[in-house]
Amino acid sequence: MTKKAVVLLSGGLDSTTCLAIAKDRGFETYALSFDYGQRHRAELTASEEIAKLYGAKEHKIVKLSIGELGGSALTDDDIAVPDYNGSGEIPVTYVPARNTVFLSIALGWAEVLKAYHIFIGVSVVDYSGYPDCRPEFIAAFERMANLATKDGVEGKCFTLEPPLMHLSKAETILLGNTLGVDYAKTISCYQANDLGQACGSCDSCELRRQGFIEAGLADATLYA
Amino acid sequence: MTKKAVVLLSGGLDSTTCLAIAKDRGFETYALSFDYGQRHRAELTASEEIAKLYGAKEHKIVKLSIGELGGSALTDDDIAVPDYNGSGEIPVTYVPARNTVFLSIALGWAEVLKAYHIFIGVSVVDYSGYPDCRPEFIAAFERMANLATKDGVEGKCFTLEPPLMHLSKAETILLGNTLGVDYAKTISCYQANDLGQACGSCDSCELRRQGFIEAGLADATLYA
Repeated sequence: MTKKAVVLLSGGLDSTTCLAIAKDRGFETYALSFDYGQRHRAELTASEEIAKLYGAKEHKIVKLSIGELGGSALTDDDIAVPDYNGSGEIPVTYVPARNTVFLSIALGWAEVLKAYHIFIGVSVVDYSGYPDCRPEFIAAFERMANLATKDGVEGKCFTLEPPLMHLSKAETILLGNTLGVDYAKTISCYQANDLGQACGSCDSCELRRQGFIEAGLADATLYA
Repeated sequence: MTKKAVVLLSGGLDSTTCLAIAKDRGFETYALSFDYGQRHRAELTASEEIAKLYGAKEHKIVKLSIGELGGSALTDDDIAVPDYNGSGEIPVTYVPARNTVFLSIALGWAEVLKAYHIFIGVSVVDYSGYPDCRPEFIAAFERMANLATKDGVEGKCFTLEPPLMHLSKAETILLGNTLGVDYAKTISCYQANDLGQACGSCDSCELRRQGFIEAGLADATLYA
C-alpha cells in the first residue's frame, strides 16, 4: 500500500523542496496551503502550480482569518515589512503561532486521510529567529499530536518529517537541484507582487539570494 | 495590572461556564469562537450574546474552512449526526484535531495580546470519547506552546486553564449556577436549528439533559 503524506506547501523554496523529497521517498502526497490574509498572495498561485507539477494527489487551500488577530507585518498592513538586518532577533514578520496552527490543521487532515507522515520545510539553520522552526518544537508537537488524535490514542503514530531541519539554504537548494526542483516557480518573498516578482530586500529574499550564491547556482528568482 | 485571558467560547454550556469562571477569577477576558462550517451555527449567535453578557473585552470569530477536510458529522453533510448510544467509543461527531486547531489559534492571539492564560472547557468526565479532552493532551499542548512562541522562548509562560477537567456535567452546571450563569442562553446541540432550538437526541443534548437532572436543576434548554 502506498504511504500517504501531508506536505505543508507555501509555494516557497523550502516547502517545494519538501514536496519533491516526499515524492522521491515514494509517498503519495497531499499538499496543504493556507490563505491567511498574507501579503504575499502570489505564493498561493505558485503553490497550485507546484502541487500539480509534483503530482500531489490532492491540494487544499484552507482559508483562515488569523490575519485579523494582528501582530505580524505579514498580515497587518499597518506594520511594514522591514529590510534584512541580520540581527538574529525575532523579526516583526513572525506570525504568532503560525507553524503550530498550520501543523494542527495538517494533523486534522492527516487523520482523515490516514496519512501518518507530515512534512514541513522548517530549518533551524536559516530560521530567521522563529521559535517554531526548532527541533524541540517539532518534537513537542509530535508528542502532543499523538495524544490529541483518535488514531494516535488507538496506537497509530503520527510522525513529523522536517527533512530540511539541519540544512542551510544553500544545502537545501543543492538537494532540491539533484531532485530536479525548478526554483523559478517558487516564491519566497514576503511581499511578492501579483506577478510573483520578489522585492529583493526582505529577510526572505536576502536569505534566498545568499543561498543561491553559496550553492554556486544561478538564481532564477524573478525580481520586481 | 489586570491579567488577561483568552477563553475559547463555543456558546455551549461548558465554554460559557469557563468564561464566567475566568471573569470570577478577575481576568480581563478575550473570547474566541470559530466559524468552521459547523452544522450548529446557532451557537455562533449565542456566543456573541454571551461574550457581551459576561463583559468580554473583545470577541473574535475566526473563519476556518476545515469543514472541507471532511471526516466529521459536525461539518460533513454526508454524515448524519447519530442519536446518543452511550457506547463510549469515539463517535463520528469527532472533528479531527479540533481542540488542537482551536488552541493553536488561541495561542497566536494570546501571544499578540500578552495574555498568558488560555481557558478551555474540556472535561475528561463527560468527554464523549474525544482524545483531545484529556489532561495528558492539555499538558502536552501547554509544553509545546511554550516552545512554539516568541514569548515562551523568552521566558514567559503560557498556561492552559481547563477548570472543568474533573467535573461532571452536573458539577459544571452547579458551579455555573453559583456564578449566575444563565444556561437558557447557551446552545449545546450538535444540530440546533436557526432559532437555537435543540434536537434533544444527539450525544450533546443527552449529556446536557442528564446533567440538569443530576444537578437537580430545571433544564432551561429550548427544544425544537
